Amino acid sequence: MADKQTVISKILSGKYQPAKAVVDVFAPANIALCKYWGKRNLELNLPVTDSLSLSLGTLGSHCKLSDTDKATDRIVLNGNELSAEHPFVKRLVTFLDLFREHPSERFCIETTNTIPTAAGFASSASGFAAVVKALDRRYGWQLPAAQLSILARMGSGSASRSLWQGFVRWHAGQSDDGMDSVSEPLESQWEEICIGLLVLNRNQKKIGSTEAMKRTVETSALYRAWPQQVERDMTCMLSAIEQRDFEMLGKTAETNALAMHATMMAACPPVLYWQPESLIAMQTVWQARNEGLPVYFTMDAGPNIKLVFQKADQDAIEKRFEGLVTANPWEDD
Amino acid sequence: MADKQTVISKILSGKYQPAKAVVDVFAPANIALCKYWGKRNLELNLPVTDSLSLSLGTLGSHCKLSDTDKATDRIVLNGNELSAEHPFVKRLVTFLDLFREHPSERFCIETTNTIPTAAGFASSASGFAAVVKALDRRYGWQLPAAQLSILARMGSGSASRSLWQGFVRWHAGQSDDGMDSVSEPLESQWEEICIGLLVLNRNQKKIGSTEAMKRTVETSALYRAWPQQVERDMTCMLSAIEQRDFEMLGKTAETNALAMHATMMAACPPVLYWQPESLIAMQTVWQARNEGLPVYFTMDAGPNIKLVFQKADQDAIEKRFEGLVTANPWEDD
Repeated sequence: MADKQTVISKILSGKYQPAKAVVDVFAPANIALCKYWGKRNLELNLPVTDSLSLSLGTLGSHCKLSDTDKATDRIVLNGNELSAEHPFVKRLVTFLDLFREHPSERFCIETTNTIPTAAGFASSASGFAAVVKALDRRYGWQLPAAQLSILARMGSGSASRSLWQGFVRWHAGQSDDGMDSVSEPLESQWEEICIGLLVLNRNQKKIGSTEAMKRTVETSALYRAWPQQVERDMTCMLSAIEQRDFEMLGKTAETNALAMHATMMAACPPVLYWQPESLIAMQTVWQARNEGLPVYFTMDAGPNIKLVFQKADQDAIEKRFEGLVTANPWEDD
Repeated sequence: MADKQTVISKILSGKYQPAKAVVDVFAPANIALCKYWGKRNLELNLPVTDSLSLSLGTLGSHCKLSDTDKATDRIVLNGNELSAEHPFVKRLVTFLDLFREHPSERFCIETTNTIPTAAGFASSASGFAAVVKALDRRYGWQLPAAQLSILARMGSGSASRSLWQGFVRWHAGQSDDGMDSVSEPLESQWEEICIGLLVLNRNQKKIGSTEAMKRTVETSALYRAWPQQVERDMTCMLSAIEQRDFEMLGKTAETNALAMHATMMAACPPVLYWQPESLIAMQTVWQARNEGLPVYFTMDAGPNIKLVFQKADQDAIEKRFEGLVTANPWEDD
């Protein structure tokens, strides 16, 4: 079985160059329309199926990386220095260990998220993608984004998709070392499409997505049908994007999200991220659609809801859904 | 393909005897712990899988059947005579047509439900079972209950299980005419177990269970895994009943109900019976269990919740869940 270090050697061997000591980068968050749910390799974050996302434009993670003389890495998140015991710090330091040119070198990483941290808003995706972009600059690797997506994926699966704006497809791949489990942007620029973030509940989720996926894969009888679901939905979505068929894209995204949550509910014990507010928001979306407003939802491993709609309807939708934060997936930072 | 009339001829040929002109019978409602979800034959209500229920003791349908000189059947439900246009009347009259000894004879059927009508409380199961029991008396067929379960099933699938108290297993069977799709009571009398009905929402459901099943079978990719789910859950439940393992019975019932709803959510368009109150009730059940109160839920094609618990905890549970109606599955009417 391949491990992370083997993969990193394949990609980075001979690539380290003298480069900048202070770098500042940005990576967008992304929301999957066709979900990543289930790993075939827990170490390398290799997925069971392909997935397809929209990036969130200027909403994501800014990452400033600099060298430090301290004995440990310093991690500053949204202006607050985190203690070495913080789970996010442990996870990030372990990830950085994979890449240090000299075992003793330490970094100061200042991450600022322009999207609400945790609660299912994929800040780990943009966070890890930004760190990998920063390391690329710091060490002068000059890697293509596709290669960076492999490295980012080993930090957080969905980070694989956070190297570009717009539609991004993450190919599951088949190889044991995941060198073919790589993301790529779709050529299609469908700039009318927006993503709206609806914060319903700011509580940290009780069960993390890695644990939820693992339990679903191991115990949910319905999960067996998930790969066929994704195959069907991915075909529909790619065709909808090609034909600019917004209704087909939205309906398929909604179906895919509900099916993902359905596989979790059938796990033992069940995984239920839904809160009463989530259900009310879904019903409001359906009601709005009945009244002729074309809006669809998607939902990740948390209680919050994301809306998919077109720019022409932005005002009407922001009026209907109070507190909505709208992202433009093709807007560069 | 076998039709209803063929099945009825097999069962009833030569059985009509001069008998009572006025009969009065009762059939209990039942709640499935391992659900019936999906038909392999829409005409005969033949299920894809086995199912297992608990009957509701004195909660069910009283049915008084008498002859009438009128030109049409008179149907009185809970004291109100229904018009010939009422969907329930049409369904019942079509069912009665299958059994009349003389094409011109008409009945007066007075049904009184001791359980809230519709909203997922299975009054059609006890209603059709009671009508079949009444016809058996009216015509002097003197059929064993297993044969009556075949006839009742052609009126409403789950009526097949409403001919007995306690645990009832409905065998899916394999034959085209459904002569082996028959229910039978389990020998086990586990009288500590209660079912609590929690009325959260009295609205009629927007989509009937027959239509919901059909859509799920035809469009839900996850439904393909449902038969394996049932096989696993049925094995667990039978073993739990044999070992008097209440926790295993309760957990499996909860898992099975969530998995059934999961198959519906993945249908296109999705079928979602949940209301915010349903989700709150589920969370309350989990919270109560965390605090040491052994209570589990199940849920059918409607927004309401049913609780499974033991008599020893009845007071504590009725205090916790306001308005709960408790049924004793081994209590005879």
